[in-house]
Amino acid sequence: MSEQQVRPDADLDVTAEVERRARLAKEAGRELAALTRADKDALLLRLADALDAAAPTVLPANEADLAAGREAGLADSLLDRLRLDEARLAAIADAVRQVAALPDPVGEVVRGSTLPNGLKITQVRVPMGVVGMIYEARPNVTVDAAALALKSGNAVLLRGGSAAARSNQALVEVIRQVLTEQGVPADAVASVDDGGRAAARALMRARGLVDVIIPRGGAGLIAAVVAESVVPVIETGSGNVHVYVDAAADHEMARRIVVNSKTHRPSVCNAAETLLIHRNVAPALLPVLLGDLHALGVTLYGDAETLRLAGDVPVEPATEELYDTEFHGLEMTVAVLDSIDAALEHVRRYSTGHTEAIVTNDRVAARRWTSGIDAAVVMVNASTRFTDGGEFGFGAEIGISTQKLHARGPMALPELTTTTWIVEGDGQVRN
Amino acid sequence: MSEQQVRPDADLDVTAEVERRARLAKEAGRELAALTRADKDALLLRLADALDAAAPTVLPANEADLAAGREAGLADSLLDRLRLDEARLAAIADAVRQVAALPDPVGEVVRGSTLPNGLKITQVRVPMGVVGMIYEARPNVTVDAAALALKSGNAVLLRGGSAAARSNQALVEVIRQVLTEQGVPADAVASVDDGGRAAARALMRARGLVDVIIPRGGAGLIAAVVAESVVPVIETGSGNVHVYVDAAADHEMARRIVVNSKTHRPSVCNAAETLLIHRNVAPALLPVLLGDLHALGVTLYGDAETLRLAGDVPVEPATEELYDTEFHGLEMTVAVLDSIDAALEHVRRYSTGHTEAIVTNDRVAARRWTSGIDAAVVMVNASTRFTDGGEFGFGAEIGISTQKLHARGPMALPELTTTTWIVEGDGQVRN
Repeated sequence: MSEQQVRPDADLDVTAEVERRARLAKEAGRELAALTRADKDALLLRLADALDAAAPTVLPANEADLAAGREAGLADSLLDRLRLDEARLAAIADAVRQVAALPDPVGEVVRGSTLPNGLKITQVRVPMGVVGMIYEARPNVTVDAAALALKSGNAVLLRGGSAAARSNQALVEVIRQVLTEQGVPADAVASVDDGGRAAARALMRARGLVDVIIPRGGAGLIAAVVAESVVPVIETGSGNVHVYVDAAADHEMARRIVVNSKTHRPSVCNAAETLLIHRNVAPALLPVLLGDLHALGVTLYGDAETLRLAGDVPVEPATEELYDTEFHGLEMTVAVLDSIDAALEHVRRYSTGHTEAIVTNDRVAARRWTSGIDAAVVMVNASTRFTDGGEFGFGAEIGISTQKLHARGPMALPELTTTTWIVEGDGQVRN
Repeated sequence: MSEQQVRPDADLDVTAEVERRARLAKEAGRELAALTRADKDALLLRLADALDAAAPTVLPANEADLAAGREAGLADSLLDRLRLDEARLAAIADAVRQVAALPDPVGEVVRGSTLPNGLKITQVRVPMGVVGMIYEARPNVTVDAAALALKSGNAVLLRGGSAAARSNQALVEVIRQVLTEQGVPADAVASVDDGGRAAARALMRARGLVDVIIPRGGAGLIAAVVAESVVPVIETGSGNVHVYVDAAADHEMARRIVVNSKTHRPSVCNAAETLLIHRNVAPALLPVLLGDLHALGVTLYGDAETLRLAGDVPVEPATEELYDTEFHGLEMTVAVLDSIDAALEHVRRYSTGHTEAIVTNDRVAARRWTSGIDAAVVMVNASTRFTDGGEFGFGAEIGISTQKLHARGPMALPELTTTTWIVEGDGQVRN
């Protein structure tokens, strides 16, 4: 990448350079689009081996990022996400092998028919072209994004957090080397990290050169990309996820689902943040649920009725703001409601449209829930943790979309493609 | 709508009022989402009858718009698109009946499976919620958009060109009246025309309240909406459409397809703008094609080789800018090329990704074309005029998308829906 250095202090130069790389990526993407599945899988398997062998260049670069990060006072959690070691690098390589094993979405026939005039129309999946990734300082995303893009026949321009710039550069070198070895233009994968924030801006404005931008990171990053980008964005959203325990819930099932939804992996977007419970079942069941959660270290915030029923379990008063919070940790808000309608109303008010679950043995209540909720995933009698590309059997997951266009819910390789209509005739014209 | 008057001079008030209407639309949308197909069809058929009976209020309002337009010096073509009469109103009502006859996209199961752990997952089409339409002064679009939105279970906020404000208001009154009669909240269809440009801006910023914006109109309108909107946009694009006559083309077929693609209806986006022809076939075929086009009143612009071969047919010199132009009329650029690769290269340079056609009897050339072109529709041996929702058998067409996200090519009712995953279990949790 050294021949591609740009001066981050000169925005116009950065824009021109990002556009130049996007043009090269677009050309390279045309060659990728023509590769067979066998070509792409061979490329990815070679890349996995090359990553396994790349510790001597990648780990020192990562060490330099870590040292700079410590000096800059980065939080321990950020440093941990930034850190690579032999084991993590091996895991990254393995993830590439898993992408190689997935079916190729390109060429899939989505639908088709023969029109009354004899024209044969076929809608076929084709690569997007050039994917722009804007993400935070996590070097694994660099390889992950490149592997998913290559498998779906797309070129990719990468803009990672500057704290990981040295690690990303080392990884991108490995990828480009492998591309060249395999006879694919290296420009199919390029970083624009060297252009800093100006490069991210240029990427978001490269309409016509970049086909889609996928932001991956916190809510702030995503909101900024949505606001600024004129390139279409596929948003991966945050999850303010609710579990509603209905009057007709099985008590043991409710305990299992509430505990699993909240505590199985509280830092991720499909973890539950709020427990809603029907008034009729609250006196018998809520104290047990609160006890379960408290025993697992969950800090609880409840409405007046929850506080009244909590018994010995410590519960702080809930607020509007707390009901509106995605905790990413062992905290949970609780509300006792008069009806399923009140629960639907609460969810409408606070939901981010990610995953909303009901626990009930009542068919009517289940139907009301599945038809009344506006979310990517609606669960009946299952843990919210199942909203996941891997669990859904997609193999890979680029993220979970909480937007309504193009993709909603877990996104995998087909979501990195678009379609084209092939129309075949023998001279038909319109009258 | 009189209770909804806003002062267009007070942007903040306009924003608050647009947001208020969007909230009402969202609530109304929830009721629409629960309607059966029978309910929706009955509503649309009643609306069609009401439109037939509405001439006494709609036509005078339209007359007032026309008078104001003439006074403001609107072009005749714009006045013609603005004008309503008994026959045009009847045609608008008939279009509503046609939408009623289309299948309901809501509830369609897109895919599903039972996971190894017994969870049943089903991806189902559901309405978007609230659709924002931003369009030019064409009153028929007001009814068309409302009918398509209602059929797909969506509420709609309409912002038409101010030159049609009185006509639109009269039409929206009819629609809201019918909604009320049929027991559906009138707020499912609302105009924000009374808020002027500030209302359009507020619509584009109503993220979370408006689910998708569809601009309908010229390239300038669409580009402005894409640049300004933070609500996701479905773009309907322009068409710089090419027909490439290959060395292996059947001559009579080439004549039919070139003439039909250019002259059948030159003002629309699927009409051809450029004729490309292989050098080997140009001496025999190009003079005939130019003669055909000239005889039908087409003004021709060609490269040096075209000028050399044109004989008696008048051809002006082509320029970069002309090759880059969507004429919307009886003009056409022409180029003679050395190979199919040169034709692909020309298309890549100038195409807007709408429709690109080849005329050839050579299987290899046809395959190179279909795999080498990046467009919504790729034609082999058929007129470009077939890129059309009606021709494709979709019944209705909202527009032709030339973007790659969500929808590409002719868009119909399913493209006005999103999906939700329904996950049904019996107590599954993750380990």
